[in-house]
Amino acid sequence: MLRNDTICALSTPSGMGAIAVIRVSGINTFSHVSQVFKPLNKKKTISNVESHTAIFGNIYDGDDLIDEVLISVFKNPKSFTGEDSVEISCHGSTYIQQRMLQVLLKQGVRMADPGEFSMRAFMNGKMDLSQAEAVADIIESESAASHKVAMNQMRGGFSKELQVLRTKLIDFASLIELELDFGEEDVEFANREQLEDLMNTIQGHIQKLIGSFKMGNAIKNGIPVAIVGAPNAGKSTLLNALLREERALVSEIAGTTRDTVEDEVHLGGVTFRFIDTAGLRETEDVVESMGIKRAYEKIEQARLVIFLFDAAESSKPFEEYTKILIKAEDTPILVISNKNDKVNAKDFSEDFKSVSNYLSMSAKKDEGVLELEAALVEAAGLNNINNNETIVTNTRHLQALTLAGDNLKRAQEGLANDLPGDLMAQDIRQCLYHLGEITGEVTADDLLGNIFGKFCIGK
Amino acid sequence: MLRNDTICALSTPSGMGAIAVIRVSGINTFSHVSQVFKPLNKKKTISNVESHTAIFGNIYDGDDLIDEVLISVFKNPKSFTGEDSVEISCHGSTYIQQRMLQVLLKQGVRMADPGEFSMRAFMNGKMDLSQAEAVADIIESESAASHKVAMNQMRGGFSKELQVLRTKLIDFASLIELELDFGEEDVEFANREQLEDLMNTIQGHIQKLIGSFKMGNAIKNGIPVAIVGAPNAGKSTLLNALLREERALVSEIAGTTRDTVEDEVHLGGVTFRFIDTAGLRETEDVVESMGIKRAYEKIEQARLVIFLFDAAESSKPFEEYTKILIKAEDTPILVISNKNDKVNAKDFSEDFKSVSNYLSMSAKKDEGVLELEAALVEAAGLNNINNNETIVTNTRHLQALTLAGDNLKRAQEGLANDLPGDLMAQDIRQCLYHLGEITGEVTADDLLGNIFGKFCIGK
Repeated sequence: MLRNDTICALSTPSGMGAIAVIRVSGINTFSHVSQVFKPLNKKKTISNVESHTAIFGNIYDGDDLIDEVLISVFKNPKSFTGEDSVEISCHGSTYIQQRMLQVLLKQGVRMADPGEFSMRAFMNGKMDLSQAEAVADIIESESAASHKVAMNQMRGGFSKELQVLRTKLIDFASLIELELDFGEEDVEFANREQLEDLMNTIQGHIQKLIGSFKMGNAIKNGIPVAIVGAPNAGKSTLLNALLREERALVSEIAGTTRDTVEDEVHLGGVTFRFIDTAGLRETEDVVESMGIKRAYEKIEQARLVIFLFDAAESSKPFEEYTKILIKAEDTPILVISNKNDKVNAKDFSEDFKSVSNYLSMSAKKDEGVLELEAALVEAAGLNNINNNETIVTNTRHLQALTLAGDNLKRAQEGLANDLPGDLMAQDIRQCLYHLGEITGEVTADDLLGNIFGKFCIGK
Repeated sequence: MLRNDTICALSTPSGMGAIAVIRVSGINTFSHVSQVFKPLNKKKTISNVESHTAIFGNIYDGDDLIDEVLISVFKNPKSFTGEDSVEISCHGSTYIQQRMLQVLLKQGVRMADPGEFSMRAFMNGKMDLSQAEAVADIIESESAASHKVAMNQMRGGFSKELQVLRTKLIDFASLIELELDFGEEDVEFANREQLEDLMNTIQGHIQKLIGSFKMGNAIKNGIPVAIVGAPNAGKSTLLNALLREERALVSEIAGTTRDTVEDEVHLGGVTFRFIDTAGLRETEDVVESMGIKRAYEKIEQARLVIFLFDAAESSKPFEEYTKILIKAEDTPILVISNKNDKVNAKDFSEDFKSVSNYLSMSAKKDEGVLELEAALVEAAGLNNINNNETIVTNTRHLQALTLAGDNLKRAQEGLANDLPGDLMAQDIRQCLYHLGEITGEVTADDLLGNIFGKFCIGK
């Protein structure tokens, strides 16, 4: 699995730009690149300069000049991968990008697999597995919250926390295993009370991390919001009002505008994904119809529900609300009485006086939109993410934590029931194994392939 | 016009990638960037390190960590712009790209106008105007030929050639003007025979450059090829056969694939743009119908014509060819007898024995496609571009050369007709002026705005 042959990839986004960067890393990076690169100042060769130096020169394919480039030299272990590396900064034409890679391939450099640079960084101990995974999360993050959580993970916040737990548990596991060596003498090296306290503390910590996943997943993938309401209640106007804010924000800076994902809004640093729930119009019998059934299924997937009605057309919105409330269970519901600008709009605030998340607004006139945004952010409960709080966002981590928690629970039960030390030691070792999976202290090759295969090329 | 305030822009293509590069340049680059950048090694600050050093560290917006970055420091005049510059290499998430620019803007850095980095490089004497224009051409070049011509121009090939012409002419212009100062004494400092020789040589050179534009334009914008033939002659099969080759070539390297422009094929380093000319089927009276008229108009725009017919269905292809030949005038015509794999395909080689560019093939069976490609490249006449030959690709340069040539012609006529020296001196000065426009030795502000405004952001 551990390979150090020389690899290359385009690391900047594909397409035309002022600059493109080709990354090269591996044992023969310097000799391969020196074959095709001629520095302008003959004294500044790749082997002469110190690490972290940029050299100006030309890249040739035989006699054919491909481009004037700046190459940045990083000497092992002072590079991202921990290997000898070079970053070639060339003119960003698609033609030059192709030719650059072709000329490197001719030298025997290999195209990097997705995530291979990060995998090498992990293999060479530059970062642990959860940190490497965070790099991919950072690249994909689109909101302040997902960025912050991924950044904290990349900088080792999560890893340090796990390390502390593991170290303590390892000490006890060793003591218990020592007892087993002296099995017939019936000694107790490991203080059972201290062990019980420790296991309780660690279990509490593991459960807290597991509990953070619901929030972590919402941060990473966006908060699913079901908008429930008749088609004429003004749902799309509401969405547009929310999206307009976002679009204006994105287009503030030229050159970074990305294609806006429909029905996805970033508010207060959090991504909200609006789920389409057509259907409340189709029948008088709200609960029975298939369309409504599907709407209610959507409610179950949501972490937030917006119940929207037309203040001029609706007759008994509170009855509808009650039916939704039953289905929504613990999911918070924002009630919006829309179109309050209409002449015949009725005031339902008396009906909803028991509902704290009630808002009267006009999406069309852009009245109450800011209040709605604030209510969404508040209801999401993500506006106060602690900088230092670890939040689990990765399904793989959740699975490992769950298994670690289960094993620890068995060890705790074993202790409570005075089971033999060897069984308990085994459970603790299993718990340690699963905690170690997260940071990659224990890994299987196919797991690594699976993790890094999801990365983008060039990282 | 000459500004040195600090500017920034995203220089890599927009969108998500492993790496993005933000370029900062201007008089306060180092102080602005130092405000937001904390190096990991406190001794390696922007002001401490030598030019061309990469420093690892963090970029903050207040207390908020935006990203771990590598910044490359370029100290004036040793930078692309000639100013103090920094390139920030950050994780390529769209969120981070935006935040990076925002935090720089907060410091008082301004978003760069399109091409503003290149304009500053020109203003600071790092490159002349035709070289700066070549940078934009390089970024847009998609074929080996357009890349080579642009690269030669960026490296000053064209500029040096113009410089030689101008220097010689300036010497003579000075001598003639000296004569005018001694006007009443009727002296001749400038040897008239030598001057005549020189003006002939320069005029020849200018006309050669003007003449190269036809080829230069074809190289830069692709060679327009009109395919004429009945719809069932197999035109789209032929195009697909040509495009397949191209697609295979592009997809060899992952990550650089661009959206293939329909009906545009790169062969032998040259871009061919195929022009749609439906219409030969609509009437028996080939010359009269409107559709045919339009097809013939397309022929006039083309630099190459492919006349394609179905060897099994056509009866008198040579008659059709003759009509096209009249319209095509000097434009080369490739005659293709297609579908020679059909049982009832006829052999028309006897009819076309006088035509050198005759090819019998089966686009469907992929037979004869390589021969067609070779014939296209051969007919384009671009397969032997000399590395050192200057080829004009820019309309602005063509205009300046044409005006320079006209002025020189007047000076030549003046000399031949023994006109007064002051008139001749004026024509030579005008000629020099227009030659100087190309390299930017004489420029107007609005001209510069016009030129650099067409550049991409970040260059």
